[in-house]
Amino acid sequence: MAAGPGGSTQDEVRRHNVSTLLRYVHVHGPTSRAELTSAMQLNRSTIGTLTADLAGAGLVREELPARTAGAGAGRPSLVVWPRPEQVYVLAFDIGVDYLIAARVGLGGSILDRRELYRPRGDYAMDDVVNHLCRFTTEMSARAEPGSVCVGVGAAIAGVVRESDGLVRFAPNLGWVDEPLGSALAEGLGRQGVRARVAVGNDADLGALAEHVRGAAAGATDAVYLTGEVGVGAGIIVGGEPLRGHGGYGGELGHMVVNPAGRLCRCGARGCWETEIGEKAILDAAGHPDGPRSTVPAVVAAASGGDPRALAAVRHVGEWLAIGVGNLVNIFNPEVVIFGGLLRDLFPAVEQQLSGALRTVGLSAPREQVRLTAPGLGADSTLVGAAERAFGPLLFDPPGTLALLA
Amino acid sequence: MAAGPGGSTQDEVRRHNVSTLLRYVHVHGPTSRAELTSAMQLNRSTIGTLTADLAGAGLVREELPARTAGAGAGRPSLVVWPRPEQVYVLAFDIGVDYLIAARVGLGGSILDRRELYRPRGDYAMDDVVNHLCRFTTEMSARAEPGSVCVGVGAAIAGVVRESDGLVRFAPNLGWVDEPLGSALAEGLGRQGVRARVAVGNDADLGALAEHVRGAAAGATDAVYLTGEVGVGAGIIVGGEPLRGHGGYGGELGHMVVNPAGRLCRCGARGCWETEIGEKAILDAAGHPDGPRSTVPAVVAAASGGDPRALAAVRHVGEWLAIGVGNLVNIFNPEVVIFGGLLRDLFPAVEQQLSGALRTVGLSAPREQVRLTAPGLGADSTLVGAAERAFGPLLFDPPGTLALLA
Repeated sequence: MAAGPGGSTQDEVRRHNVSTLLRYVHVHGPTSRAELTSAMQLNRSTIGTLTADLAGAGLVREELPARTAGAGAGRPSLVVWPRPEQVYVLAFDIGVDYLIAARVGLGGSILDRRELYRPRGDYAMDDVVNHLCRFTTEMSARAEPGSVCVGVGAAIAGVVRESDGLVRFAPNLGWVDEPLGSALAEGLGRQGVRARVAVGNDADLGALAEHVRGAAAGATDAVYLTGEVGVGAGIIVGGEPLRGHGGYGGELGHMVVNPAGRLCRCGARGCWETEIGEKAILDAAGHPDGPRSTVPAVVAAASGGDPRALAAVRHVGEWLAIGVGNLVNIFNPEVVIFGGLLRDLFPAVEQQLSGALRTVGLSAPREQVRLTAPGLGADSTLVGAAERAFGPLLFDPPGTLALLA
Repeated sequence: MAAGPGGSTQDEVRRHNVSTLLRYVHVHGPTSRAELTSAMQLNRSTIGTLTADLAGAGLVREELPARTAGAGAGRPSLVVWPRPEQVYVLAFDIGVDYLIAARVGLGGSILDRRELYRPRGDYAMDDVVNHLCRFTTEMSARAEPGSVCVGVGAAIAGVVRESDGLVRFAPNLGWVDEPLGSALAEGLGRQGVRARVAVGNDADLGALAEHVRGAAAGATDAVYLTGEVGVGAGIIVGGEPLRGHGGYGGELGHMVVNPAGRLCRCGARGCWETEIGEKAILDAAGHPDGPRSTVPAVVAAASGGDPRALAAVRHVGEWLAIGVGNLVNIFNPEVVIFGGLLRDLFPAVEQQLSGALRTVGLSAPREQVRLTAPGLGADSTLVGAAERAFGPLLFDPPGTLALLA
C-alpha cells in the first residue's frame, strides 16, 4: 500500500531502471546512450552502469555508431543493441485451421517460423501440442549455440485462465477446460526449454502487439478487433489492457446490435458477430459454405464491380459501422484496428465506415478516432504472443535470467 | 519515465505516505494507529510521525479510544480522526430541474446542504452560478471559525473540459461552451473562497463516489449508470475511471441497441437512451408529457398491479437488459449500479434483468456481476463532486494547504 523509505526502495529503483532501459531498446531498436539519457531522464553515468549490467547478462551489446557524414567533434555516443540471436522467445498462434510457430528475438525480429494449414475440425489439444513441439525442435536446432529461450507465449481464440494457461472455452476448436499451458510446458520441457509458458486470448495479444509496436503505438486508448469465425477484441484503456474482474472483458462479438436479428451460438439474438462474422459475410455473398479464403475473394469481386459481392460487403459494412460507432462512443479511442477477417474486409468498407460514423458516433469522440488496418499485418497475434512471452524478462531482467540459469 | 535514486525519491515517499494515511482516514473514518500500521505496512514510529504531521496541519486529531469492555492490559492505541468541521469542501450538483449545494467535511460527512427545485427550462449559466454563490454565503456563515475550504467540485450532465471546467455541451440545459469553472471561481472568490474549482460530468462523479464509498467500494471494475433526460455512465476499469483519449468515454446512452428504433437527438437511430430514458418510460406508460416525478409514480402503479404501468416497466426493462448484457460482456464488471432515474426503476425490474441476463450475458462474466442500487442513494453525484474537490488535498496534503495559506 505504501512505499517504505528503506533499502528495498533502492533495489526497486534499480530494477525499475534496468527494466525500463531494456524495454526501450526492445521496442525502439538500437539506441545511443545519449538518446537513452534523454529518454529516461537519468544521468550519463547511471545509463552507463545500467547498460554494463545488461551487457554483462548477455542481453545487449554496445558498439560505436556507423560513421556519420558531418558528425561534429567529440566522442560519439555508444549505441546499445538488443541481442536477438542470444535471447529469444517462442511464440505460437493457434487458429481454427492453422498453427503458426516462431522464434522471436529480443527486439522483436522474427528469426524463424513454421506454419501449418489444415482443414477445420475439432482438433485435440495433444495433437496441437505435438505439432508445436515438433516445430520447436526444428527451430531450436537452428538457434545460435549458447542462446537462451526466455519465454513461451501461445495465442488462442478462446477464454483463457492466465494464471496457468487453462483454456476454459474455445468453441471453434471444441475445447473445454484443456490444460494447454501445462501440456506445452511439459512437452517443451522434454526438449530442455525451461522458460515459463504464458497462454492468452488471441484478440488480447493482438492488441498488445499493436500497442507495443503496431498501429496503436503511443496510444493510451485503442480497440483492436479481430475475427475468424467469431469476433473478438482487445481493448486498451488508459494505456492498460481492459481485463475486467475475472479477465473476461472485451467480448465485443457478443454486443447485441440487432435484437431482431439472427440467433447467435451464445444463445442471444443479434450479437455483433452474427452480423459481421465470417458466416454473415459468406451468407450475404451467396457462398454459405465457402472456406475462409472465400472472404478475400468476395472482397476482390466487390472491388471488381460484382454486384452481389458489392451488396454483401456493403451490408456487412453497415453493421460494422453501427458497432464501431458504439465503440467510439463508449471508449473514445485514438484508434480502432481491424484485424483477422476484418483486415481482409477493411479496405472495401473504409470509406463507408467513415461516412456512417458521422451518424452513429458523437462528434467529440468521432473527431479523435483513426480507423486502420493492423500495423503488423497478419502477424499481430503471433507478435503479441511473443511480447507476452518477453514480459517477465522485460519486467525483471536479472531475476528472470537467474531463474533460467 | 524512470525514478532516480536521489533525494527527491525520499520526499516523494514521504508525500505518498502522508497522502495514503489521510486518504485512509477520509474513506474509513476514525482509525487506530495500530490498524494504520497494519494497513499501510509501515512501522509504528513512521505512522506516529505521519499522524503528527497531519495533526499539526489541522487535518486530523488523535484521541484515546472509548473504554472497551474486556480490553487487555497495555497502552491502548490512539485513534486518528479526520476533522470535518475544520477542513471541508463545497459540492454542487447542477441538474436540469434542480440545484443542490453542500458543505462536505473531511471524512465525507455532509455538514450542511441547500436544494432548489424549479421547472425545466434553459437556464443561463450566470443564474446557476448566482444561486450557488448565495447558497455558499449561507453555508459559510455557519462554518466553524478558522475552518478552511480546501476544494470546490461541481457536477453537471454534460461534456466537460476538466482542465478549466469549460462545459463544452450540456444539451438538457442548453449550454454550449459555458465557462462554468472560471465563473464559479470568480463568484466564490468574491466571498473569500480561494480553493480550486473542479467541474466534472455527473455520471463520472457518481461513479467516483460509489467507487470510493458506495456500492462499488473495493471493486476494480464497475459501471455506474445514471439518467435524467438522457442516459450516462461512469465506468471504472482496473480501478481507474475510463476517460478515453479526450475524456469523452463512457457515452453508453448512445450505444445503438435498436437500429430499427426511434431517432435519437444525437442523430443516430435506436440509441440506448431512446429505449430506456425518461421519455421512453413516460411514452410507454401513456404520460408523454408527465414531469420527472411521473417516473416513480409509474413504478408505484406497476407494483400496485396497474396493467399499463406494468407493461411500460416491463418494456423498458427488456431494453435495459439488452444494454446491461452488453456492458457485462464488454467490461466484465463486478457491479452495475443503477443511479438517477434508473434508481427509481430498478426495484421494479431487478428480477426481470437477472432473468434476461441469462440469455444476453455470456456465462463467465454474468456469474461475476452484481446489479444494485447506489450505495449513496440519491446523493452519488453530490458526494462525487465532493470527492473530486478533496482530490488535491488527498494527493498532496501539505502542498495543497500551503497554496491556501
